Amino acid sequence: MKTLEVCLSPELIHQHQLGGKVVVVVDIFRATSCIVTGLASGVTAIRPMEEVEACKKLGEQGYLTAGERGGIKVPEFDMGNSPFEYQSENVKGKKVAISTTNGSQAIVKSQEAEDIIIGAFLNLEAVSEYILQAKKDVVIHCAGWKGTVNLEDTLFAGALIDECAEEMNPRGDSALLAHQLYIGNHENLFGIAKQSGHAERLAGFGIEKDLEFCMTVDEYSVVPKLVDEELVDS
Amino acid sequence: MKTLEVCLSPELIHQHQLGGKVVVVVDIFRATSCIVTGLASGVTAIRPMEEVEACKKLGEQGYLTAGERGGIKVPEFDMGNSPFEYQSENVKGKKVAISTTNGSQAIVKSQEAEDIIIGAFLNLEAVSEYILQAKKDVVIHCAGWKGTVNLEDTLFAGALIDECAEEMNPRGDSALLAHQLYIGNHENLFGIAKQSGHAERLAGFGIEKDLEFCMTVDEYSVVPKLVDEELVDS
Repeated sequence: MKTLEVCLSPELIHQHQLGGKVVVVVDIFRATSCIVTGLASGVTAIRPMEEVEACKKLGEQGYLTAGERGGIKVPEFDMGNSPFEYQSENVKGKKVAISTTNGSQAIVKSQEAEDIIIGAFLNLEAVSEYILQAKKDVVIHCAGWKGTVNLEDTLFAGALIDECAEEMNPRGDSALLAHQLYIGNHENLFGIAKQSGHAERLAGFGIEKDLEFCMTVDEYSVVPKLVDEELVDS
Repeated sequence: MKTLEVCLSPELIHQHQLGGKVVVVVDIFRATSCIVTGLASGVTAIRPMEEVEACKKLGEQGYLTAGERGGIKVPEFDMGNSPFEYQSENVKGKKVAISTTNGSQAIVKSQEAEDIIIGAFLNLEAVSEYILQAKKDVVIHCAGWKGTVNLEDTLFAGALIDECAEEMNPRGDSALLAHQLYIGNHENLFGIAKQSGHAERLAGFGIEKDLEFCMTVDEYSVVPKLVDEELVDS
């Protein structure tokens, strides 16, 4: 059987061999939830960037610019990091350049993988179908918070392992840990995710609706995939 | 209330401020279980060393030498890394120099802390009493396996958080994660720990009895503490 590993933080990604594997990048609050929502809502491509300045340059070339630093919208950008902004009519048919605290960096650190796709609760089943069809070993790369492990990304990793449990094996203790976390809390996903430090920081910005939406399972069926430096629906 | 943080791997210890805090070093399979057993069984002091050669030099000064690399006893050493070796009459009144793959390194990486103590399931309640009386913030430093996160150390971190839940607050998502892992599995500690990669590696050496003993709760009441580079009963 093919295997599912979990990397709990980008600071531990060097412990995983990525070559020939599919990496699922996860940043539930909120980058990967936004990316999934955007591509499901008519955005044609999303380009993840590490630096704010590089994003702005793409803005001059017709991209919408989006992203946050420390949970707060970058002032000069067109959009922040709320999934609801990505549902707007204004984004349809557009390309978006996005730079976020954690999610973009995790994508950049996954470059050695054969395929990089984007996971969120919003497209959980679609991601599981993708990786089951790919028939490759998988690393779930949790973006965390500034290098630290976080609860909501680990919970997603556990959910994806659970979804694939009959056809793929968890590999390594981080995968077992994530799976156990999900098993113990699958009936109360939002309740447990709300306790995370990340959720508490973001709740300070009055965006509990964002968080609740990000914990919604199977809202969309897109699987964003990195092709020529841009995320497009696979 | 004072706080309990969890560091899931020595590779993440830089994310924690240790100054002024108590660090509880944990390496359930098997270094910290051995240290607790040794001090409870009459060993007068245990000196953790990073290098095998430094251990040997202490051997020439009258220390017993102990430890493993990759789970296997260092051939020239007096003892390996089984807690049962530390119950022998031969160790009573002796000092032991120990070097292990993970545990010793985690102790060395905790040097900035105000106090370094040693935790295992074997002395869980004693450790909780120590930190409640210390009235300081605490970091539980899981030794893991060669830098990776492991199940049994994380499970212990969750058990210690649970034990102190009424008087100390978990801080950070790793602490919440460890606590959830424990809550979901506290009735089946050995069962879940046996699934860990570390346990599977060690089981290959035919030492399941060691592992079962290491998962025994509250067998001893010693709390090993680092004083002048040696671990002694506090």
